Amino acid sequence: MEISECIEILSRQNDILIVSHVRPDGDTLGSSGALCSALRRMGKRAYMYKNPEITEKYLPYVAGFFPPAGFQEKYTVTVDTAEPSLFPKGFSGKPDMCIDHHPSNSRYTGNLLLGAKKSACGEIILELIKAMLGGIDKTEATLLYIAISTDTGCFQYSNTNSATFRAAAETLDGGANVHELNQRLFRKQSKARIMLEGMIFSGMSFHRNGGVAVATVTKEMMAKAGATENDCDDLASLSGRVEGAVVSVTIRENDDGGSKISVRSDPSVNSSDICAVYGGGGHAMAAGCTIDCPPEEAKGKILAAIDLIWK
Amino acid sequence: MEISECIEILSRQNDILIVSHVRPDGDTLGSSGALCSALRRMGKRAYMYKNPEITEKYLPYVAGFFPPAGFQEKYTVTVDTAEPSLFPKGFSGKPDMCIDHHPSNSRYTGNLLLGAKKSACGEIILELIKAMLGGIDKTEATLLYIAISTDTGCFQYSNTNSATFRAAAETLDGGANVHELNQRLFRKQSKARIMLEGMIFSGMSFHRNGGVAVATVTKEMMAKAGATENDCDDLASLSGRVEGAVVSVTIRENDDGGSKISVRSDPSVNSSDICAVYGGGGHAMAAGCTIDCPPEEAKGKILAAIDLIWK
Repeated sequence: MEISECIEILSRQNDILIVSHVRPDGDTLGSSGALCSALRRMGKRAYMYKNPEITEKYLPYVAGFFPPAGFQEKYTVTVDTAEPSLFPKGFSGKPDMCIDHHPSNSRYTGNLLLGAKKSACGEIILELIKAMLGGIDKTEATLLYIAISTDTGCFQYSNTNSATFRAAAETLDGGANVHELNQRLFRKQSKARIMLEGMIFSGMSFHRNGGVAVATVTKEMMAKAGATENDCDDLASLSGRVEGAVVSVTIRENDDGGSKISVRSDPSVNSSDICAVYGGGGHAMAAGCTIDCPPEEAKGKILAAIDLIWK
Repeated sequence: MEISECIEILSRQNDILIVSHVRPDGDTLGSSGALCSALRRMGKRAYMYKNPEITEKYLPYVAGFFPPAGFQEKYTVTVDTAEPSLFPKGFSGKPDMCIDHHPSNSRYTGNLLLGAKKSACGEIILELIKAMLGGIDKTEATLLYIAISTDTGCFQYSNTNSATFRAAAETLDGGANVHELNQRLFRKQSKARIMLEGMIFSGMSFHRNGGVAVATVTKEMMAKAGATENDCDDLASLSGRVEGAVVSVTIRENDDGGSKISVRSDPSVNSSDICAVYGGGGHAMAAGCTIDCPPEEAKGKILAAIDLIWK
């Protein structure tokens, strides 16, 4: 479906429900909110599905779009959702349209607006709104900056391209307060997270002349930092921040006392092969496995697996 | 001076020396290197002054531009250098031209190309090269991405604007490998820095219900982490990363046993007033002072000053 067709269809609908995906991130929420705002500017009744998993970080930006009691949708659009298994908790509707940027989209709706080369779904929504209304307003600019910046790790991930930067520029021109948003989205962290990172960094060990970095996260550390799952976003990437580390390992103590292992590596070493030694797997540069023993013992075992694979 | 006049002057010169500023950062080095490359493409002999303070992070990108023994410049251009006190160590020449983005530029050269609204000097060099040669090559794209991304904290500082993003997009189109550069410039840190951050984070204290965060860096911590000054970039910003901290303090133990204090604050509290209590000063949101006692004692004193100023 082309953008023009998408607009033509939306313009004939009313009472539109926009649905974000399970464990919603900044892209699905920012994209949904911006679309909702634009549809309202078109004179439509439009609401966002009240996804029960929206975290505090994003809630203030989208809370104004939740439907009132008794709202009955007549048309449903999913956003940034590649397949039905990713529908949010509690959602049982039948989507009529999907707007997405995942090349793997399973084409579960009759109408699909797919921008498979876009770094964020927000870039598609930006083009859509510009085509619908000639430009974005400040609310949409803010929501789309959230979408684009979070899906590219604030322009640091490898999906960042020149179109990403140009889309970000348009959201700034549209009134997004990039400094305030960056502080909130990327710079500020909870006290518990900071304390936990402190313990993780000071407890890291290095092996094979710094080529292997190992971070451990125990239940005791979590308790001492006052940390919950909310504070554990992307912990597995921390050990990879050390210069010289070719293989970086994160060992997380499970509730049952076993150890969940995450391995990240440069292209020269295969993470998946390392994890396969203990029945795990994944990708060449990011893989995982579970070892049924406490972290300190699991560390010896995963170091042995690294020695086996990385000659 | 306009860009056209700048090009007209440069086109008449040869044996050009390009000079970065003291304690060179990514903007002065990236901008200098890109200008040097472009002048060579114009058929000029052009070299970068071999600034003795270039760190390992940037050296690989500019080492190819240093002059051979016996090179005698006939024309000298300073880049990103607001006044003569910022000339690099060992430099005693007389600059003929300055290209800069600091509004405070002291106009110490007859010819000044000043882009006071640019977030990075690299943005001016980008425009200059495009006007000189119609576009940038891959070397220049890489150097200009370094200039623009580092001077804006990878697009997170408040000087980031839509022109910054558009300039970054052009460097990507020109061939800059943004993912690799971001890893090197922003993501990877030395083992010593990681260990030091770990100790700083785990040793932080919080006061006034989390509104004040205090980080301490002692000589013992530095030694334990194996850290040198090279590992201490922007340490004073770490304590401000905690959510809820209105005032954040960093206390660094001096070689003489005294304490260097850095204070950062939200606009609601005046950092400069806090530091003035001990004879220091600075800006409303970032200030400093020195207290002539060990860190633990200095902490009590600066907390008292905060109580005095922040009612």
